[in-house]
Amino acid sequence: MAESNSVLIGRKPVMNYVLACITLFHSGAKEVNIKARGRAISRAVDVAEIARRRFLPDVKVGKITIGTEELKSGEGESSTNVSTIEITLTR
Amino acid sequence: MAESNSVLIGRKPVMNYVLACITLFHSGAKEVNIKARGRAISRAVDVAEIARRRFLPDVKVGKITIGTEELKSGEGESSTNVSTIEITLTR
Repeated sequence: MAESNSVLIGRKPVMNYVLACITLFHSGAKEVNIKARGRAISRAVDVAEIARRRFLPDVKVGKITIGTEELKSGEGESSTNVSTIEITLTR
Repeated sequence: MAESNSVLIGRKPVMNYVLACITLFHSGAKEVNIKARGRAISRAVDVAEIARRRFLPDVKVGKITIGTEELKSGEGESSTNVSTIEITLTR
């Protein structure tokens, strides 16, 4: 897809990811997907809210989906589940 | 509203909140709202995913909304913003 503009949330400061979203929208994106899992989910919501409220008033929160991903620690090992979120911002 | 079944996520273990959701559905609720703010947002997603996948296969994730709440520290003090999430589980 040409429109696959994703921002994957990690452990960096929130503003780094907000800036990534702004940059994508300013370069012409109509849609940006903010993705996170585990502890970073709270930060993903912060990023969406700050980007939208403080910097991109014409951008709206579109679809929000949650899910579960299985993390395998090694071969044949027991796996742990981690929650995921995907927040779509649209202009 | 008679149907206002909310579970507010705090700092307790995830399973406490999962059990609260299960109890509400077993007592006849058609809809349960999982609410959280700040750091607890990740836990809210965990609660929704565990309740749905492991215990309540007939329950679906409905609407998910995110928002911002203003927290006032005192009178006339500066306020901080905190992100919020509300996940609706429906049967």
